Amino acid sequence: MTVTQLLLSLVFIYIAAKVGAEIATRLGQPPVLGELVGGIVIGTTGFKLIDPQAEIIHLLAELGVLILLFEVGLETKLSDLTKVGKQALFVAVIGVIVPILMGYGLGHLFGLGPVPSLLIGAGLSATSIGISARVLSDQGALTSVAGCIILGAAVLDDISGVALLAVVSKIAEIGTVNVTDVAIATGTSLGFVLVTLLLGKHIAHALLKLVSYLRSRGILLVSFLTFAFFLAYLAQIVGSAALIGAFAAGLLLEETEHQHTLETQLRPVADIFTPIFFVSVGASVNLFALSPFDPATRAMFGFAVLLTGIAVVSKLVAGFGANPKEASRMVVGVGMLARGEVGLIFAGVGLASGVLNPGLYAALVTAVMVTTLMAPPWLRHALSKSKSKSMSAVS
Amino acid sequence: MTVTQLLLSLVFIYIAAKVGAEIATRLGQPPVLGELVGGIVIGTTGFKLIDPQAEIIHLLAELGVLILLFEVGLETKLSDLTKVGKQALFVAVIGVIVPILMGYGLGHLFGLGPVPSLLIGAGLSATSIGISARVLSDQGALTSVAGCIILGAAVLDDISGVALLAVVSKIAEIGTVNVTDVAIATGTSLGFVLVTLLLGKHIAHALLKLVSYLRSRGILLVSFLTFAFFLAYLAQIVGSAALIGAFAAGLLLEETEHQHTLETQLRPVADIFTPIFFVSVGASVNLFALSPFDPATRAMFGFAVLLTGIAVVSKLVAGFGANPKEASRMVVGVGMLARGEVGLIFAGVGLASGVLNPGLYAALVTAVMVTTLMAPPWLRHALSKSKSKSMSAVS
Repeated sequence: MTVTQLLLSLVFIYIAAKVGAEIATRLGQPPVLGELVGGIVIGTTGFKLIDPQAEIIHLLAELGVLILLFEVGLETKLSDLTKVGKQALFVAVIGVIVPILMGYGLGHLFGLGPVPSLLIGAGLSATSIGISARVLSDQGALTSVAGCIILGAAVLDDISGVALLAVVSKIAEIGTVNVTDVAIATGTSLGFVLVTLLLGKHIAHALLKLVSYLRSRGILLVSFLTFAFFLAYLAQIVGSAALIGAFAAGLLLEETEHQHTLETQLRPVADIFTPIFFVSVGASVNLFALSPFDPATRAMFGFAVLLTGIAVVSKLVAGFGANPKEASRMVVGVGMLARGEVGLIFAGVGLASGVLNPGLYAALVTAVMVTTLMAPPWLRHALSKSKSKSMSAVS
Repeated sequence: MTVTQLLLSLVFIYIAAKVGAEIATRLGQPPVLGELVGGIVIGTTGFKLIDPQAEIIHLLAELGVLILLFEVGLETKLSDLTKVGKQALFVAVIGVIVPILMGYGLGHLFGLGPVPSLLIGAGLSATSIGISARVLSDQGALTSVAGCIILGAAVLDDISGVALLAVVSKIAEIGTVNVTDVAIATGTSLGFVLVTLLLGKHIAHALLKLVSYLRSRGILLVSFLTFAFFLAYLAQIVGSAALIGAFAAGLLLEETEHQHTLETQLRPVADIFTPIFFVSVGASVNLFALSPFDPATRAMFGFAVLLTGIAVVSKLVAGFGANPKEASRMVVGVGMLARGEVGLIFAGVGLASGVLNPGLYAALVTAVMVTTLMAPPWLRHALSKSKSKSMSAVS
C-alpha cells in the first residue's frame, strides 16, 4: 500500500467512525456501536472504501486495540480485580464451558463432525474485552463491582481462549489432541499473567524512577507505551495474547504518581488509534454471505441464527457466576456478550485448515459480529436499570 | 510483518529514540540528532534490529513526518510567512539553482554523463523541512524572522523539488526532457498551495463550525487530523507532496479559536509518531558502503566527501537571499542545510532506473545524511550566536 492509499483509507475510517459515533450518541446509543456500523457501511458489506485485510490497516487496528487495553488497564485497580476474583472466575468458567457445549451440540444436531463442532463452540467462548470495556468506560462503570467482574472474567476467558486456540489449531491440523498440549497452553498463558503481575511491580517501579531523571519531550508517554508494547510482545511470544500484556502493563502503572498525566497524554493517542480497530471489525463483515433471500445462503442463515442465539444465551448464563447482592447478574451476563478478535481468529483458523466450509465460517463470523453489535446498546440499557455497587463500597 | 514483529520493532525504535535524545540533550545537542544517531545504531549500519524498508515501518514513518509538518504548520502564522515571502523566495531560488549547478559540475569533473550529473545535483536541491523545523521548534525560534524565512524557503524548495523529481524521473526514463513537462509539474505543485490557501480558509471555517456541534470523544483532534490527512492526500494526487498538504492544513487551522486545544492534544500523538520517522532515516543509512578503509569503496568515499562539501556550501550560499538587517544569513543558510526524504527519493529513483550505480547512490545518500546530521547542532549553535529579530518586531 502506498502512503496515498493509506491516507485515503484513514480519511474514510475517521469519517465513518465519527459520523457513526455522532449518530449513535444522538440516538442514545454507545458511540462504539456507531463506529462498528460505520465500518459496515464503508467495508465489505457496504461501499468497499477500505480493505480491512490490508496489512497496514490490520496492524494499525491491532495497535489500536492494544492501546485501548492499556488505557483500560490504567483505569482499573488491580486490588479491585482481586477482590472480585472468585466471582470473575465463576463467570469465566461458566462462560467458557457453556458455549463450547452448546456450540458442539448444535453442530452435532446439524450433522457436523466432532472437530468442526468443537471449533465452533470454542469460537464462541471468548468475550471481547475491548468492546465491553469501552462501553463500561463510556458509562463510567469501570469501577463498579459488575464492571470489575466483567473485566476480570473477560481477561480470564481471553487467556483460556488463547490456550484453546493452540489446542484447536493442533486438532484441526492432526485431527486429534493430547492432554499435555492443553495443559502446557493453559499453563503458559496463566503463568505469564501471574509472573508479570508479581515481577512487574518492581520493573514498573524501576522504570518510574528512571523516567523521573529524563528530560526529553514526550518521555513519560513514550516510555510507558514502550513498556506496554514490550509486555504485549512478551505475552505474544510466550503463547499468551498481546492484549493481555497491554492490559497487564496498564494495571501495573495504575497506582503510580504519574498515572494522571499518563492518562491525559494517552487519551489523544487512543482517540487516533482505537477507531481504526472498531471500524475494521465492522468493515470485515460480509452480511451478504448469509442473506435469507438467496436460496444458496438460506440454510446457512438458519444455522447462523441458531448459533447467534446460543452465543447470547450461553453468556447470559455466565452472569449466574456473580453474587446478586453485589452486582446485577444481567449486567454481568450482557457484559460478557460481545465476542471479538479471538472468535474471528478461530473462524479464520477453521477456514484456512478446511475444518469449516465458507458457509460455516460466515455463520461463526456472524454470530461473533451480531453479539458484538448487540452488546453495547444492551449493556448500556442494563447498566441504567441496575444499581451495581461501586467498588469503593466493597471491603 | 506480524503484530509480534511490529511490537518488537516499535520497542527498539522508541528505546533508540529516547536514549539518543537523552544523550544528545545532556551533551547540549538537539534531541533530533540523538534520534538520528539512535537510528544508525539499531539500523543497517549497526545492529540491524529494525528493517526501515518494511512496509509498515515506512508508512508509520511517513505518517510521522506528516503529523510533524501539521504540527509545525499549526505553530506558524501564514501572515508571517507572507511578510518574509520575498526573502524566502530568494533563498529558495539560490538554494535550488546553486546545488544543481555545483552537483552537475562535480559529476562532469568525475566523467559522469549529463543525466546522472543532473540527478545528483537535483538530489541536493531540496531541504528537509522536518529536521530544521524540529530544531527551530526545540529552540523556540519558529517565530523569529530567520525561522520564518527558513520555513518559507524550505516549503518553496520542497515544491520545486517535487516538480524536479517528476522531470528527472522522466529524463531517467526516456533520456530527454520537454519544457512543457517541466512547466506542468511546477505549475500544479505551486497551484495546489495557492488554491489550498485561498479556498482552505473557508473549508477550515466550515469544519470548525461543524465540529462545535459535535459531541463524541476526541472529535476535535480526529476531525482536524482527518482534514490534514485529506489535504496531504490531495496534494499527493495532484502531483505535489503530501508534506506540503499537511503543512498547509496546519497553517489554515493556526488562527482558529481551537488552536491551543488542538496543539495540546496533537503533541502526544506527534510524540508517538515522529520518532519513528527520525529513527527510520538513521536506520536506512549504510555507512559501510563508503568506508575509506576498503579499497573497493575508497574512490566513492572521495566523491562522497566532495559531494557533501558541495551540499553544505551550496545551501550556505542561499543564506545571502536573506536581508542581513532582519535575519542572520548564517542562520538561514545553516537552516537550509538538512536534506531529507526528497533527496533520498531522488537517490532511490536514480538507483532503480539504473542512472546511478550503487556507489553513486551511496554517495548521494551519504551527502544527504551527513548534512542532516550536521544541521541540528550547527543550527542550534548559529541560533545562539545570532540575534534574529522576532516576527512581532517586523511590520
